[in-house]
Amino acid sequence: MAGSTFGNLFRLHTFGESHGPAIGGIVDGCPPSLVLDLDAIQHQLDRRKPGQSRITTGRKESDTVQFLSGLLGNVTTGTPIGFQLQNEDQRSGDYRELEQNYRPSHADYTFDQKFGIRDHRGGGRSSARETACRVVAGSIAMQYLKTQGIEIFAYVSAVGPIQMPLAYNQVQPALIDSNLVRCPHSESAAEMEAYILRLKKEGDTTGGVITGVIKGVPPGLGEPVFDKLHADLGKAMLSINAVKGFEYGSGFAGCAMKGTEHNDIFSGEGGRIHTLSNRSGGIQGGISNGEDIYFNVAFKPVATVLKPQQTVNKDGENVALAVKGRHDSCVVPRAVPIVEAMAALVIADHLLKQRTINNTL
Amino acid sequence: MAGSTFGNLFRLHTFGESHGPAIGGIVDGCPPSLVLDLDAIQHQLDRRKPGQSRITTGRKESDTVQFLSGLLGNVTTGTPIGFQLQNEDQRSGDYRELEQNYRPSHADYTFDQKFGIRDHRGGGRSSARETACRVVAGSIAMQYLKTQGIEIFAYVSAVGPIQMPLAYNQVQPALIDSNLVRCPHSESAAEMEAYILRLKKEGDTTGGVITGVIKGVPPGLGEPVFDKLHADLGKAMLSINAVKGFEYGSGFAGCAMKGTEHNDIFSGEGGRIHTLSNRSGGIQGGISNGEDIYFNVAFKPVATVLKPQQTVNKDGENVALAVKGRHDSCVVPRAVPIVEAMAALVIADHLLKQRTINNTL
Amino acid sequence: MAGSTFGNLFRLHTFGESHGPAIGGIVDGCPPSLVLDLDAIQHQLDRRKPGQSRITTGRKESDTVQFLSGLLGNVTTGTPIGFQLQNEDQRSGDYRELEQNYRPSHADYTFDQKFGIRDHRGGGRSSARETACRVVAGSIAMQYLKTQGIEIFAYVSAVGPIQMPLAYNQVQPALIDSNLVRCPHSESAAEMEAYILRLKKEGDTTGGVITGVIKGVPPGLGEPVFDKLHADLGKAMLSINAVKGFEYGSGFAGCAMKGTEHNDIFSGEGGRIHTLSNRSGGIQGGISNGEDIYFNVAFKPVATVLKPQQTVNKDGENVALAVKGRHDSCVVPRAVPIVEAMAALVIADHLLKQRTINNTL
Amino acid sequence: MAGSTFGNLFRLHTFGESHGPAIGGIVDGCPPSLVLDLDAIQHQLDRRKPGQSRITTGRKESDTVQFLSGLLGNVTTGTPIGFQLQNEDQRSGDYRELEQNYRPSHADYTFDQKFGIRDHRGGGRSSARETACRVVAGSIAMQYLKTQGIEIFAYVSAVGPIQMPLAYNQVQPALIDSNLVRCPHSESAAEMEAYILRLKKEGDTTGGVITGVIKGVPPGLGEPVFDKLHADLGKAMLSINAVKGFEYGSGFAGCAMKGTEHNDIFSGEGGRIHTLSNRSGGIQGGISNGEDIYFNVAFKPVATVLKPQQTVNKDGENVALAVKGRHDSCVVPRAVPIVEAMAALVIADHLLKQRTINNTL
Repeated sequence: MAGSTFGNLFRLHTFGESHGPAIGGIVDGCPPSLVLDLDAIQHQLDRRKPGQSRITTGRKESDTVQFLSGLLGNVTTGTPIGFQLQNEDQRSGDYRELEQNYRPSHADYTFDQKFGIRDHRGGGRSSARETACRVVAGSIAMQYLKTQGIEIFAYVSAVGPIQMPLAYNQVQPALIDSNLVRCPHSESAAEMEAYILRLKKEGDTTGGVITGVIKGVPPGLGEPVFDKLHADLGKAMLSINAVKGFEYGSGFAGCAMKGTEHNDIFSGEGGRIHTLSNRSGGIQGGISNGEDIYFNVAFKPVATVLKPQQTVNKDGENVALAVKGRHDSCVVPRAVPIVEAMAALVIADHLLKQRTINNTL
Repeated sequence: MAGSTFGNLFRLHTFGESHGPAIGGIVDGCPPSLVLDLDAIQHQLDRRKPGQSRITTGRKESDTVQFLSGLLGNVTTGTPIGFQLQNEDQRSGDYRELEQNYRPSHADYTFDQKFGIRDHRGGGRSSARETACRVVAGSIAMQYLKTQGIEIFAYVSAVGPIQMPLAYNQVQPALIDSNLVRCPHSESAAEMEAYILRLKKEGDTTGGVITGVIKGVPPGLGEPVFDKLHADLGKAMLSINAVKGFEYGSGFAGCAMKGTEHNDIFSGEGGRIHTLSNRSGGIQGGISNGEDIYFNVAFKPVATVLKPQQTVNKDGENVALAVKGRHDSCVVPRAVPIVEAMAALVIADHLLKQRTINNTL
Repeated sequence: MAGSTFGNLFRLHTFGESHGPAIGGIVDGCPPSLVLDLDAIQHQLDRRKPGQSRITTGRKESDTVQFLSGLLGNVTTGTPIGFQLQNEDQRSGDYRELEQNYRPSHADYTFDQKFGIRDHRGGGRSSARETACRVVAGSIAMQYLKTQGIEIFAYVSAVGPIQMPLAYNQVQPALIDSNLVRCPHSESAAEMEAYILRLKKEGDTTGGVITGVIKGVPPGLGEPVFDKLHADLGKAMLSINAVKGFEYGSGFAGCAMKGTEHNDIFSGEGGRIHTLSNRSGGIQGGISNGEDIYFNVAFKPVATVLKPQQTVNKDGENVALAVKGRHDSCVVPRAVPIVEAMAALVIADHLLKQRTINNTL
Repeated sequence: MAGSTFGNLFRLHTFGESHGPAIGGIVDGCPPSLVLDLDAIQHQLDRRKPGQSRITTGRKESDTVQFLSGLLGNVTTGTPIGFQLQNEDQRSGDYRELEQNYRPSHADYTFDQKFGIRDHRGGGRSSARETACRVVAGSIAMQYLKTQGIEIFAYVSAVGPIQMPLAYNQVQPALIDSNLVRCPHSESAAEMEAYILRLKKEGDTTGGVITGVIKGVPPGLGEPVFDKLHADLGKAMLSINAVKGFEYGSGFAGCAMKGTEHNDIFSGEGGRIHTLSNRSGGIQGGISNGEDIYFNVAFKPVATVLKPQQTVNKDGENVALAVKGRHDSCVVPRAVPIVEAMAALVIADHLLKQRTINNTL
């Protein structure tokens, strides 16, 4: 409930509205002497940024991160890493109507109810722009995890009604960015792209699913009771704008199975204890078991549609709303690096925690 | 990551293994001068306890809660409420084989990997017995919320492949406990019960889905960024033993919809701003909007099957495992009060938080 | 602000009033596979308990700790260690008058103001009885620290106006318990004891100072900014009942010195970097430097005097108060193990934290 | 132990080294709709900044705060208030020698021991420059508290051996800034200033004491056990650079008194329960009682002396060190706004916490 803070040992604090001088954050607790690839951080930001392709919003932000502290050159010192991204290309005028009217399925009304005051420009604090800060911090976490043999990737597995057919362990990560949708199955990707472009033309939007995969996690991460590894992953994903659901391993589909079908049989073959199947999704009793972790994240359709809608104004009077501005018809392609970032923050946090028990990590 | 602690302002700390003198906990931060109905707390424990009916485990625990502090009679004083439940009916002998062998899809292996030592009796700390403490604390939270006009209930909406047909707002809460399954649709309940009994006979198990509903939440609860109300609900649910997924509002199904279909239109009719549909599940931008909150929780099949299974022992040698003991074939009927409890803890915590902003609450 | 919780990684949660079934707590985050000397824990409790000698309160509590979880025999498992101490010898009748009247310099009035309700029996939650739980947890922490080469001891350095003349590094720890006052300078101890007995006869009370010493702390513990090692030690000590001040190293006396006199000169003699003096008290910039940590804790006179006093009742009416009951005339002899316990909790917490940076610890 | 975070509900996160692009922070949890006097914030920064007078360091920093988020104009929105201060006038060259050598009684050695890497320029993260961020956040807290009827001020009560004779309740706050030392007793101030200037000429330094006063705190703030109001104030003060001790109310001097002399007698005169004396320092049992809170904070002599000193280099070899650069001979005049800021952060945090219990606040 610490508002704008995520994590306990590897922590991110963020600030910033979509309209104002800057957004930014502090990464606190990052291990010292980590050599950062700053270009790789910027690359992740570029994968998230608006205006990157014909299937995303036309809004342009260069989203260049500036580091303010915590680094000697590109080496972490163990002290807080302060960073910021300037806000640019703000057309506040586009949002003037939104000061009075509540956009359907947006946070306008709930913000007013919570705070009694609201920065209406571009969604203010509830704008998805805030997730750029998560990408910065998550990229740092990913680079730390890489030194520990842990790899994280995510991809689009569904857009609207179109689902791609590959299981998580059939995916070639190198193909993810081979298309604009970030779906590693090229035929599905083509369909998805066509669907998004059609909706864009209609002034409509859709949702989708992102699948995340984490490889190389040592056994032992996660706490047995409340802070189960998948519970923290779930919270991380559910905290991303527009997310409506989370499942890991066999997920919702597993509910219908029998225990004898669902259980993952252990084997000692090859001199290493492992499971022959992975419906557990790499986590048993809330603790990683050394197998791949995988999960699905459900994103709702983008709430900002360009078709006119009915709504109310601040006084509760019914009004018609025709939103202008430049918006995504489907956010999942841009949300891939955000899912990766949040996964990295969770794993880094639990890895540091486990070092308090096991100093061979 | 505070291990056995849940919540920030309305907090629960728990302790205890399934085998040992007792389990228990501390509720800290409960508002003072709350008059508790102690029987209602015990009633919720009875809905969770093993041995309650022919479709649950035969293991018997009276699960009587004893309060140790924080109350003057049955009135809260604002100081920590310590409580405990004695462990009874421990047949440690049943578990002797489990000291050496790792049960498939249990936490045995991961516990050893995490801690290097394990209380193997009955699952130790990762036994679902721990959830009794959550029920105690959650019942207190529910009673507090009731004084604020908030009602919480949950019910079984699927068992194995059987799904009940009613939407959350068609359910009559009074019918939930009208059958052993806790499914408020009597025909589905009958099917589910038959299915569970059949699996029990086969020595097999299944999973299911629980739907939770929260009514009367004032607008404004939840934090805009990381601690979104549904993110905290999701974490709460995912922290319950055997849970594999969480969705709220339109959930995973919403991904396939178009924005124009999915958006909840606001209306000011009747002098109160509300939405005409509720695909948002009562939460927009992470903040409650005053509509009903509803969500689904996916439970995997119980991992302890009585059919023999292959597994490994601590030395990584393949062994055959035939678990004895008394176990549930399906946990969802007993998990209903746990889902209610965790929901109550989350809402109580956020309600107290919101009082730091809005002192009319 | 987590109410009844102390620590972040090595944590203590406590519950309990002086009058009620029991007090107790949960130690969470204690490393697994630690072999505990349970007698040593009880020994520390015995050093704290009332009725231990002619200079303490006549109230008798056996203060026997019962462990409820987290141990296999006497070995920690890494899961929460639940424990309790039954309340005994409760003469609630002694306190009846206190329901209506506010004892001077006690927490009666402030409790009513904070909570609007109060368990008046024996001070309720603000009774020093709560510190028994700290001693249990602190003893566990001390035993953990001992395995890391860290030793903690405390002693009485002043009672009322009587100050003992030895510096912290002249003290022989073995002498601390050679007298009832726990002052390692026998002549001072004799004076102090006589003083306490005289006050007891007069129905009056006094305060005193406890000095704490921590040896063997590796360099590197403590955080550079807010969570400086001495800041957390200070908070720990100031959280003990009746404490009015804290200073470490040169403390208040250091303010009057010049920098050239005060600075601790480094030397590399003997192949190890160390300081030739220790006015820094083993901490520089909030981080341990490997030298002895030492500090003073000021305790005010016991507020409960047996002489009649003026006060007010709940209605604000002036009344005369004559407290009965059995009370200490000076708490510092019994507070020695509490100071040791709190110091141990702080160091254990920071040691675990530092393991997230430095895995050679 | 959250590194660079202070507070629970009213929180400050900081970042930044003395040499690097900027320092800054995030204030999270500040109530919405608070109208800020931005000049008053800058005024507090100016009271802290170097180069403000002839008795402080000659180093110049304009220390202009720039707000990046969380404000609509000068009104808080309830979202995180991001801010930064550019670093200027960095003469990194002055510090080159310090890369290899450890300054006595500085954090150079302990930083290397903790992190294994160190930004040696100007003390890096352990530079007192970090406290500028505390002043920004504390000023916001003070302005919030003012709307609640709470006033905070601090002043210099001792410099080296010179102590000013007035008790806290004899001080006229308006006189504090009437001299460069910020001592409200003009004759003492003159002596102190002369003493500081003499030390400056000698290349030596000294310490001092700051007294803090908080008026108008409603009864009921503070938690009864670990998070006693004075324990949190103590931690706050001890976290300020160079602080060696903290006492409140009667403090260390109270230890020598008898209970009958020390107790504060309650009176109901005037229709309000209050105490006739205030040795409790406004806090009883860790909870505010509505009387003035007052406390003393001990600052050690500045460690950076311009006289040559012996020390060691990183290899443990003895070397002579002659620090150049511009440094304070006594920090207490500049530390007055820091003490005020930290006090404000503690009180604001506890006030918000108490609103979860008492919604008339």
